[in-house]
This record gives sequence, C-alpha cells and structure tokens, in this order.
Amino acid sequence: MKIIEGGVTASQGFQASGVYAGIKKNRKDMALVYSSVPAKGAGTFTTNVVKAAPVIWDMKITKESQYVQAVVLNSGVANACTGAEGDKNNELMAEAVAKALNIPINSVYTASTGVIGKQMPIDVIVKGVSLLAGELKPGLGAGAQAAEAIMTTDTYPKECAVSFVIDGKEVKLGGMAKGSGMIHPNMATMLAVITTDLAISKELLQEALSEDVKHSFNMISVDRDTSTNDSLLILANGLAGNKEITEKNDDYDAFCKALNYVTTNLAKKIAADGEGATKLLEVQVIGVKSEEDAISISKSIITSNLVKSAVFGNDANWGRILCAMGYSGARFDPDKVDLYIESADGKLKLVENGLGTDYSEEYASKLLSGKEVKVTVDLKSGNATATAWGCDLTYDYVKINADYRS
Amino acid sequence: MKIIEGGVTASQGFQASGVYAGIKKNRKDMALVYSSVPAKGAGTFTTNVVKAAPVIWDMKITKESQYVQAVVLNSGVANACTGAEGDKNNELMAEAVAKALNIPINSVYTASTGVIGKQMPIDVIVKGVSLLAGELKPGLGAGAQAAEAIMTTDTYPKECAVSFVIDGKEVKLGGMAKGSGMIHPNMATMLAVITTDLAISKELLQEALSEDVKHSFNMISVDRDTSTNDSLLILANGLAGNKEITEKNDDYDAFCKALNYVTTNLAKKIAADGEGATKLLEVQVIGVKSEEDAISISKSIITSNLVKSAVFGNDANWGRILCAMGYSGARFDPDKVDLYIESADGKLKLVENGLGTDYSEEYASKLLSGKEVKVTVDLKSGNATATAWGCDLTYDYVKINADYRS
Repeated sequence: MKIIEGGVTASQGFQASGVYAGIKKNRKDMALVYSSVPAKGAGTFTTNVVKAAPVIWDMKITKESQYVQAVVLNSGVANACTGAEGDKNNELMAEAVAKALNIPINSVYTASTGVIGKQMPIDVIVKGVSLLAGELKPGLGAGAQAAEAIMTTDTYPKECAVSFVIDGKEVKLGGMAKGSGMIHPNMATMLAVITTDLAISKELLQEALSEDVKHSFNMISVDRDTSTNDSLLILANGLAGNKEITEKNDDYDAFCKALNYVTTNLAKKIAADGEGATKLLEVQVIGVKSEEDAISISKSIITSNLVKSAVFGNDANWGRILCAMGYSGARFDPDKVDLYIESADGKLKLVENGLGTDYSEEYASKLLSGKEVKVTVDLKSGNATATAWGCDLTYDYVKINADYRS
Repeated sequence: MKIIEGGVTASQGFQASGVYAGIKKNRKDMALVYSSVPAKGAGTFTTNVVKAAPVIWDMKITKESQYVQAVVLNSGVANACTGAEGDKNNELMAEAVAKALNIPINSVYTASTGVIGKQMPIDVIVKGVSLLAGELKPGLGAGAQAAEAIMTTDTYPKECAVSFVIDGKEVKLGGMAKGSGMIHPNMATMLAVITTDLAISKELLQEALSEDVKHSFNMISVDRDTSTNDSLLILANGLAGNKEITEKNDDYDAFCKALNYVTTNLAKKIAADGEGATKLLEVQVIGVKSEEDAISISKSIITSNLVKSAVFGNDANWGRILCAMGYSGARFDPDKVDLYIESADGKLKLVENGLGTDYSEEYASKLLSGKEVKVTVDLKSGNATATAWGCDLTYDYVKINADYRS
C-alpha cells in the first residue's frame, strides 16, 4: 500500500466539484462527486433516532439500488427536523442531480450538514446543482474543491488517498470528510465520502465498511454528541480492472487494510480539527480482557470534559483519567493500571500499579503541550486493545457553540 | 412539611464544626458532624470502579455497624488512587475522631474530596481532627461552618432543612452538600450529609435513601464525570421521640417527602453552582412511555455540551435538544415532540410536532438569559415523566479545569 495525493478524485473515473451556491455567506457550500460509470455503493449512518432527510434517503438507496453514481452534498443547513417538506426538498435535490447528469434518481446519494430545524432554500440548492454539474472535473484539484465545500466549523479540508495492488492491478482509494462539532459517531461520522476504482461485490463492500467504521470513525469524539446527519458513503466503480472481489480472500484483506488507512486518517483529522481544539488526543488501551472493555475505556477517557480540559491546560492530572476509566462500565482492577503520556518530545510513566510515580510535573506538562498527545493505559489483564481519538476542550469550543447560529 | 433554616445541625442532638487544618491554603478544609447519641446510618456511594478509600470504608460501616455517631470530612485531597497507604490514612483519620469523641471507630463515617492520586497529609489531618473536636457546637452557625469547610470549587455553601410531624412529634431533617466539578452522580453525589432526629429502622432508612437518590442527586450533572468519591450519608438519631418507623406507612411517606425536598434542593444547588456555571438548567420530560426513557432523555439533554454551550450563549438552538434526545438510547417518535422554554420572564413554545414554530428569536434569547431556565419536552406518548438538572458550559468551566491543580 502506498500513500498518494488527493481524495475523492484520486481513483479512476471519479470527478468532483465544489461551488458557492448561496446557502452560506461567501463560502463554498455545495459539492458533487460523480463516477463516470455506475458504481457499487455502501454506507453507514447515524444511530440517532432523529435522522435527517438525506440519511433516510441514503439508507433506502443503499438497501434498494444495485448501483449508485453520484453524491451531492451541501453545508449550511442539515435538513433535519424538517418533516415532510424536508423529505420533499431532499428528493428535489437528488432529482436535480439526476437530470443534470442524466442518471437515475435512485443512483444519487445526498448529504447535508449545518443548522438543524431550518428548511432547505430549495431554489438556491437546485441552482447550485446546475453550477456543480457544469464544474465537474477529474483531477485532484476538483476533489479539493469538493472537500472545501462541505466544511462547516472545520478549519481545514480533510482528504486522504492510497493505492494498492489487487490481482496485479493498481487500485486507488480516497476520501474526504468533515467535522467538527456534534462529533461522536455511532456507526458513521458526520459526512465522509470514499471512492475507489476497485471491483468488489456490493455485499462485501458494505461488510468491509461496516466492520471498518467500528475501528475508525466510531472511535473518535469531539463532544459526545451523536449527530442527526452522520453518513459515511463509499462508491466502488471497478475501473481498476481487477477480477471482482466476491469472497473474503487476500485481496479483500488488502482492500480492508487500505480502507482502514484512509478512514482512520480522515477520522483523526476530524478529531484533531474538533471545534476549538488545539491538539489531537490519542488514547490507546492495552492489556484488556475484552475488546468491548478496551473500546469502552478508551472512549470514556477521550470524552471526559475534565480530561479534555486538563489536556488543554497541559496539566498531567492523571486521576481524572483513572476516574473516567472507572465509570466507563468496564470492570478492571485499578491496582494493576500503568499509564504513560507521550508526544514528539518523549514518553513518561505517570502511574504504576494504580499509584502515581515520582515523575516531573514540569516534564509532563512539556509533553502535554505537544500538538499530538498520546495516552497509553495498560491494564495488564489480557490481550485486547483499542485506540480512540479526541481533542482538548477549550474556550473556543464554548465560544463557537455559544453563538453557532449567529 | 415546613422549610426551616439550617443544615446538618437543624435536627436535635447534632453538633458540627468546620476548621482550617492546613490541607488547603488559607481556606477551611475539614468538617465534623456529630450526634450526641448513637444514630442509625445509611449511605449510597459512587458506582465508579475506582473508589476512594473513604468510600470503601463507609460502605463497610454502612453494612456492618448498627449505629454511627460521627462524620469527618476533608477537602483538598480525595484519598483516591492512593493504595494501601490511602486506606491506612483513612483509618487513622477515623481513629483520631473515635479517640477525640470517645466513640467506637466503626461508628465514624469518613469523606474526602479534592485532587485524586495524592496521599493525605496525615499529620495535618490528625491535628485537624483535634481542632474539630474542640470546636464542636450545636446550632445553625456550626452547621454553616461545616458546609463551608467541604467546599472545593463551589462558590457558596449548600444547606437545606425542613421540619415535619410524625406520630405527633416535630421531626427535623437537614443536610449539606458540595459540588461542583466531576459531578454526574451514579447512586450518590460528590459529598452530602443529611441528619435527622427521626426514629426509623436502619433498613427503612437505607431503602428510603436509595430510592430517593434516583430522583434527586442522580438526576443532576455538571460534566458527565462520575466521581471516585461520591458519598451521600444520612444519620437518624431518634431524638424527636416518635415511635420508630418500622414499616412503609403514612409516617414513612411523610419522611420520604421531607427527605426528597432536602435532597432535591441540595442537588439543584449543586447543579446551579456547577463549575463555571452562570445558570441552572432544568429539563422536564413528560408524556413518555416509561420512566426509564424519561430519565434517559432528560439526562441526555442536560449533559450535552452543545446544548449547554447554546444555553450559555442564550441561543434557542432547539435542534441540539432534539439531537441529544435522539442519541439518548430511548425510542420515541420525533414527529410528536413539543418543546417549550421557560424562565422568570415567561414561557415559549419552540417546537410543535417535531417542527420549529414561528417564534421570536429575540424573545427566546431573553428567556434563556434568565438565572433559571426550564426546558419542557412533551413526547405525547404516555404518562411517565422525569426532571433533571444541569448547568451551562462556559469559558470558566474550561479555565477552572485547565489549571485545577495549580
């Protein structure tokens, strides 16, 4: 596997565009991803009971359509809590894409992000779709435009791509994603689109995605708020020319590995660019009895406001980490816990067998001031592990969310 | 039932003191509550797997001792994650109280709050106990001193007391509590001590307390962090002279009602004085199929960082409330939800049948700027209800917790 430039247009046959349609003020607000040939589609979606109109639409497409060919996305308005009018507007958005690209409406995925409870400005959206269709282009620049157009409070666009060899053919896989608040994915993340020119059956594509998300997007959290709009979509158009993957063989494993690189990379970018965040917090839990416990403990730590505030303040207040582990729901022996912190400047053991070591607070604070801080917790009770990613809690998180709509 | 002045010394036979022992800098840091006669004791404690030494001690006392007579408390150091040395220090603290007051060591409850992972300065503590014993006094002033001494980041002491009539006798019941971070009680709260001169069996005292806490302390949250030290203790010394309550009759109900008034009052004070908070947020969920769902939904709303930030910014971003309801784990029909906000200035319907009403943003913002904001959510699907209390998320919460230890 090789890491390459680009995102949704890295793979053969994919085009994209990103435009300013007029939903937001003076910022790109709509994006389109298009495959020149019909592609297999799969998706995972929010588990929130309150589901946005595009989520309901995409779940239906994923279930019923053999092929998909386009994904249209908008930022600025989430089309959630909008009732029958919201469903109708979502269909009109898909229909506009189908007409402009001359493809069936049931091959068009939709995705929206922004304020909940506002109706879509449908005239603006439909006009935006024709702009998008006119701007569609292959090449990395076009993918970057699309990644920029789906940003809300993100401070930078998020793209990632890799290439790998299957059946003697070079296959590419790339994607884009957006954060950066209301991020606590549960079976998917806010918005992410992955494209690949791999040939694979629809069933295995879905299975690979559903399995992958447990270890990538579902392991990040910015604020423990599971969105109404979480959607992770993947399109595989087969243009790489490999023999279609129809069983779980070595080729399938190679694809899963490539997929996991891209999804984890995008997920970490979302965590690092969480609203107001100044650093990425990675928490690895090792030596655990079961993976379920390892996941519970790692997510409990990265979502604790007290841990996140301490990390912001470069304060090695490890008691808060043990506290967060203790209310995670997992059972473990506190007297066996070892705990380390690590960043570019080095690594330090703060806790041994549940008790604080005689560490230097000054050095600990220096390590915590890094842009990427890693906490490793060793329960010394088994072989299961898990890694989760989050960010610090800052004044700016509060500021951004105290006046999000203004 | 009558609301009266005072806290832990409101009931007959109770004395208290609060002193500066030297654990913290220039602030009272130890408190003692004493019953002149042996009292029935009951308690509920944190469900955190990581339990502080005093919690483990108190759980044993509650289970094994027929009578308790004193509660000693300190702030500044939590005696959690302190291993065998922590257990020993806790025992030395209890022993010092037992000697000073000439009572059995197994009739002494202990409670600690403060930084996790630091060992107790046991010499300072033992000296503090003799100061406390010397200062013990009946009367409301002494109770206030004790309430002040258990504060950490609290901005004011928390006391409440009531009187009621049982079996022709006037019974009093009062308590004190402290917050104000790491507050997401699960079967108890950070530290609270209730005293009463009621005569009641130990079994019913425990049952009343365990039942009550589900609707009082367990319904508040400041930061979704369940502490390692949560302890709610109650002492009933029987000096009111009523015939001992030994069954669930009208007298028992009257006691439960009085208890609930005091616990709910103290719990609300903790929520309103949450770290950095500028206002109390009350969330009432009505028309729910089951009480379990009502509790899940109300707690999900008060713990959402996005809801809390919006409340801080006086932003009626009701979509975030529906979003938090949606990931609460409860099943419900979003299309039936009505939602109101209310404060001293009036009441406003923001959502009807899942859709935004045509409300005035300006008036909504005015209501949200009140010191006490109430949100009512009506699911129109049943008769169960629940009420939870929290606070807004502010810059000061982050500030306090970014440099808590410095």
